[in-house]
Amino acid sequence: MGGYQPQKNDRFTFGLWTIMNTGRDPFGEPTREPMTGLEVITELARRNVWAYEMHAEDLVPEGSSALDRDRIVNEAKKRMADEDIACVNCGANVFGHPAFKDGALTSHDPKVRQLALQRYMNALDIGHEVGSTLCDLWWGRDGAEVDAARNPMEAIKRLREGLNYLQRYIDEQGYQGCRLAIEPKPNEPRGDTYLPTGGHALALIATLDKPENCGVVIELAHARMAGLNAGHEVAQALECGKLFGCHLNAQKPLRFDQDLRFGAEDLKESFFVVKLIEDAGWSGARSFDAHAYRTADRAEVWDFVAGCMRTYLILREKVARFNADAEIQGLLEEINSGSDEALPPPAELSSMMLDPDALARRRLHHERLDQLTQELLLGVR
Amino acid sequence: MGGYQPQKNDRFTFGLWTIMNTGRDPFGEPTREPMTGLEVITELARRNVWAYEMHAEDLVPEGSSALDRDRIVNEAKKRMADEDIACVNCGANVFGHPAFKDGALTSHDPKVRQLALQRYMNALDIGHEVGSTLCDLWWGRDGAEVDAARNPMEAIKRLREGLNYLQRYIDEQGYQGCRLAIEPKPNEPRGDTYLPTGGHALALIATLDKPENCGVVIELAHARMAGLNAGHEVAQALECGKLFGCHLNAQKPLRFDQDLRFGAEDLKESFFVVKLIEDAGWSGARSFDAHAYRTADRAEVWDFVAGCMRTYLILREKVARFNADAEIQGLLEEINSGSDEALPPPAELSSMMLDPDALARRRLHHERLDQLTQELLLGVR
Amino acid sequence: MGGYQPQKNDRFTFGLWTIMNTGRDPFGEPTREPMTGLEVITELARRNVWAYEMHAEDLVPEGSSALDRDRIVNEAKKRMADEDIACVNCGANVFGHPAFKDGALTSHDPKVRQLALQRYMNALDIGHEVGSTLCDLWWGRDGAEVDAARNPMEAIKRLREGLNYLQRYIDEQGYQGCRLAIEPKPNEPRGDTYLPTGGHALALIATLDKPENCGVVIELAHARMAGLNAGHEVAQALECGKLFGCHLNAQKPLRFDQDLRFGAEDLKESFFVVKLIEDAGWSGARSFDAHAYRTADRAEVWDFVAGCMRTYLILREKVARFNADAEIQGLLEEINSGSDEALPPPAELSSMMLDPDALARRRLHHERLDQLTQELLLGVR
Amino acid sequence: MGGYQPQKNDRFTFGLWTIMNTGRDPFGEPTREPMTGLEVITELARRNVWAYEMHAEDLVPEGSSALDRDRIVNEAKKRMADEDIACVNCGANVFGHPAFKDGALTSHDPKVRQLALQRYMNALDIGHEVGSTLCDLWWGRDGAEVDAARNPMEAIKRLREGLNYLQRYIDEQGYQGCRLAIEPKPNEPRGDTYLPTGGHALALIATLDKPENCGVVIELAHARMAGLNAGHEVAQALECGKLFGCHLNAQKPLRFDQDLRFGAEDLKESFFVVKLIEDAGWSGARSFDAHAYRTADRAEVWDFVAGCMRTYLILREKVARFNADAEIQGLLEEINSGSDEALPPPAELSSMMLDPDALARRRLHHERLDQLTQELLLGVR
Repeated sequence: MGGYQPQKNDRFTFGLWTIMNTGRDPFGEPTREPMTGLEVITELARRNVWAYEMHAEDLVPEGSSALDRDRIVNEAKKRMADEDIACVNCGANVFGHPAFKDGALTSHDPKVRQLALQRYMNALDIGHEVGSTLCDLWWGRDGAEVDAARNPMEAIKRLREGLNYLQRYIDEQGYQGCRLAIEPKPNEPRGDTYLPTGGHALALIATLDKPENCGVVIELAHARMAGLNAGHEVAQALECGKLFGCHLNAQKPLRFDQDLRFGAEDLKESFFVVKLIEDAGWSGARSFDAHAYRTADRAEVWDFVAGCMRTYLILREKVARFNADAEIQGLLEEINSGSDEALPPPAELSSMMLDPDALARRRLHHERLDQLTQELLLGVR
Repeated sequence: MGGYQPQKNDRFTFGLWTIMNTGRDPFGEPTREPMTGLEVITELARRNVWAYEMHAEDLVPEGSSALDRDRIVNEAKKRMADEDIACVNCGANVFGHPAFKDGALTSHDPKVRQLALQRYMNALDIGHEVGSTLCDLWWGRDGAEVDAARNPMEAIKRLREGLNYLQRYIDEQGYQGCRLAIEPKPNEPRGDTYLPTGGHALALIATLDKPENCGVVIELAHARMAGLNAGHEVAQALECGKLFGCHLNAQKPLRFDQDLRFGAEDLKESFFVVKLIEDAGWSGARSFDAHAYRTADRAEVWDFVAGCMRTYLILREKVARFNADAEIQGLLEEINSGSDEALPPPAELSSMMLDPDALARRRLHHERLDQLTQELLLGVR
Repeated sequence: MGGYQPQKNDRFTFGLWTIMNTGRDPFGEPTREPMTGLEVITELARRNVWAYEMHAEDLVPEGSSALDRDRIVNEAKKRMADEDIACVNCGANVFGHPAFKDGALTSHDPKVRQLALQRYMNALDIGHEVGSTLCDLWWGRDGAEVDAARNPMEAIKRLREGLNYLQRYIDEQGYQGCRLAIEPKPNEPRGDTYLPTGGHALALIATLDKPENCGVVIELAHARMAGLNAGHEVAQALECGKLFGCHLNAQKPLRFDQDLRFGAEDLKESFFVVKLIEDAGWSGARSFDAHAYRTADRAEVWDFVAGCMRTYLILREKVARFNADAEIQGLLEEINSGSDEALPPPAELSSMMLDPDALARRRLHHERLDQLTQELLLGVR
Repeated sequence: MGGYQPQKNDRFTFGLWTIMNTGRDPFGEPTREPMTGLEVITELARRNVWAYEMHAEDLVPEGSSALDRDRIVNEAKKRMADEDIACVNCGANVFGHPAFKDGALTSHDPKVRQLALQRYMNALDIGHEVGSTLCDLWWGRDGAEVDAARNPMEAIKRLREGLNYLQRYIDEQGYQGCRLAIEPKPNEPRGDTYLPTGGHALALIATLDKPENCGVVIELAHARMAGLNAGHEVAQALECGKLFGCHLNAQKPLRFDQDLRFGAEDLKESFFVVKLIEDAGWSGARSFDAHAYRTADRAEVWDFVAGCMRTYLILREKVARFNADAEIQGLLEEINSGSDEALPPPAELSSMMLDPDALARRRLHHERLDQLTQELLLGVR
């Protein structure tokens, strides 16, 4: 059991913000010393993390001079080369500054919308410089507590306008291969966030000028904050080729955003997420977007990092065992037997005689199948 | 205050099933006498209800002979003409019979999928006969507790296949003007239903063969069972022209399906739903999909019916008052002032100087606006 | 790994109703043949189940004659002796009949309250005959959707009155050792049930005439329907000597009552419940109150039964491993080091100098401890 | 409609912290200038607020010298006298400092428990000086994400020990009339807080050395974060004489702590809370524990303050109308008719003949009653 050591080709990533988190929360002060983005890049690389994600502001703090910006970005590139770590996503922080108190792309104030677009464009620029080809938009503040103040139809139009604008910028800059993604979240910090789930984001994407260039990043904890099955969220995005990223973490459903270590809650749902992306041969990054408990000190943050990756590797191995388990696969074969039969044409089907009572008698083996799955997860088969 | 009497042109509808409900639940026996669909049609018509919705099986019970079917459908048409009531939606019951225990369109068993399609085709036929142009699909059992048994990507493919098949049937039959809709629900009776929200349904629809002919029916209680803002659900569907129906009812969030009388919970959210569809001039039916409390007897079911319609009319009047309220509109004007300013092109925006701290100082009036809204709802302004 | 076979001394029990469940739900018809209570007793006994629980009506159907009642009870006693199975809880069904549509002990109608008390008294009688010493009250319908109709303070008074009355009956009948318990549930079938959690029940019990003779039965799924930590619910009852029963099952939080096979959801929380009761040497029954998926047929119900017991045995073994794991216990020792230091008297404490910043630096090892727990559960340590 | 102006005898209070809130949240920086506790006292008094609540640290910042402490407390007393405002609750902040990262009274570290007790004792002292007779304990951090680290039974013992210790301090100091209260909250900032609801707190209180001197403060939003009916929470505490405080605010259920303006969500539940405490003639403070939206600036915080009080006064008037409404009262009379009939003794009840089917036919008027309530709330009757 000494295995489960991460390798670069496991494609693990962490957001810089996940390590920079100091433990501050609405009711208490920081419990950990701050770290700079540059420091985090180095530390992650040395733990066999393949790549990092960031908000541009994680690396280049808000209000930095152009000179400082260039210096920091160059230093990041140097460390990336020296330490062998890539960047796979560069978004923007359009939620922290009070200017965004009532949203970024959906603000009533056109200047705030412009400020948000500037930040996203800056993120596209910096991302391009460090080799990232994804700009993941988590807008955070684009939501409402007071529906009297903004028609939600208007909000959706503005989100579409903003995404189309950023695509135009990508095209004009010639950022080859660069894509956009929406990372939905149902609420917090706003009472209700616009486009609260993967489904809502996919629906908007279908109405963009270049839908092929925009996808979703599904975060497990965000799905669970909405009480949804995170695996089903991942599946719908995968099925239509729109899973541009997957943020792995854990969360007790339907409460404040906990951002727990991957696997810390609901092993079964986590297992099925790993199974979906592994079985599909999905080539995206295995990204962790979580943070250490507020009770952790700086040193313990690395226990958190190690734990996320170990649990993924353990679950990936479980997937292989599940796929090789003769009893499980035998049941699945029986369940699926005949399933691919093609449909007769409507004219023919209309008059076919089907016996509902006979159909009801088919045995489905769900109790055994789920029990075997849990026993496999528990390591007793 | 003697007003709020429903008129045919208020476009109110009830599902036949809402009145046929006998109060049976997982823990107890019926508390009300059964009624036939035909009886319900007559009773609704006499209460100035404009139209009804149904599952074909509400009108023509499962297992009826072809002769009985025709007799019942003809009797329904006669009553509709005599009593002046229309039918605006005819779906199918693909959840009650044990054959559908593991889903209808997503069942592993191709014969069960065929049975479900037959039922939907039958619903399209009967709907066509009685003048309905919508077939709303609430699939109920297409979901899972045991994700080991079915890849959710497979489930999505099958739902797409089923919807495309039904569209083909509509086309082949030449059912002019007939459209399909998905009515999403997050869970119950299944642990997790596939396509749990309006967003997920819209995302699938965008991938159909004829997306223009399929929309969604948003049910308020289903949105609230997912902890979502029902108004935002309605808004996204409205904004893209896909709101084919709206099921009005009430529900305490994140618990079992209560299907309460419209307005019985969360007046503010109900108000904003009415405001959205009234302000948009939406021409769809104002449909109630709820049922009387299990404590109600047959006679009291009509109190439930009257209450749904009265509350809608009260809220519709509140919308008019909101739109005419000088103080509220003054605040909104200030909030929206300058909002339509066009975006400069990216090349120009890149180098614009924006002052975040200055932007943060804009006053938004949310506390006053929400308080005025609540006071308007409370009838004290 | 061939182990995990239940033995009588594992003290497993099932409710008769859990096996008698036919799969009927609010949206569909039964999927399984009915069984009588007597049949269930025999079948459970033959699977090494130690005891059963029941509502008296599970065994003796409502409306049975006195003759039938005696015949059935005698037959049950005979089977219990022949097959070596005990009865550990006999409650009453005061939720199924329409008479209880607005509650049993809290009904406005004194005759309904009397009917409920009669049923509970009947349950105490039958329980006494078959050797049960617990009468667990799950009242089901004592709740509300319409708070206008009943002051919740009044409801609490009536629950107290009912419990005191039943205690008086126990005393008058001289049912030695017989105790009462409240089994709380937050909602379903009522919008809000009175005394929704273990805490609320314990608080009421403290105000009874004989508080020492009434405790709680904590059902895991009910705690999870309230979004609570089921282990914490069990712990509070255990700590004050009031855990008279524990209903083991599984549930996705904050949705309809699923009553899933024990362990089917949230292995970590299930593990800590097992750990609490095993570490405490709690002598109560390990009771399963769940039912097979509606997709299961009669034969598969026994897969469900076997799965519940196997998972308990697996988790019990994990508890032993946790308690013997040197690394885990080393961390716990460090965390707990010095923890038992007695408090100085207030006069002394007032003037003690404590350094908050120094205290904040203590390392807590939570990330490692939780990761080790999860790896132990996953069977990789 | 110019009424609804607060008066001192309306007994309104606000926590100092509610006004001092600067809009900082986990994802963003403050949006409002800070205010001192002293400034808040003056401003509240001038708006006809009757009293304030505080954590001692709101008034006297952590780390103040003894000299500063005395100066500030004296200045507070002077302002209270000059401006006619009382203090009705003085608790302690045992959640903000990193020393309390894993709890205060339940910390493993005895020094942290002592620090917490010191702070509570300091709060009792300062409260005594300014005339407060309540010390409300919201412990915030006494909870867990990692149940491996602390047995929840141990946590309950420590909470009991802490409360008994504080009672001893009150007795030794001779703080006449001074009482303790627990303010429960289900989660946030901890994954699961110990004693998550009013019921759990009442259950613990029954086991204290002096249970008569400890009660609960029910916060509506906390009840709604647990998905519970806030009115039922208030009722249980009222019924047993343990409602020592009531924190009025609003919240969408089962999500992060929103602390919205009273009445901003769920008017019906808010109405029934007001009805309970008004009808009971409860003499406690009508306390608001909420804060302005983060979008509000300093000036708008006073809109928030005014809104809380106006809504209470509007609802209080609705309660009077409800109690005087002939139709509503007529229905209630019918519902309650005969309800007080005393129970026959068990021996007699055993053999009484009751007809369940006849009892089931009693009409309950719930649909009409709830509809009339909603129409009264909407101001159309």
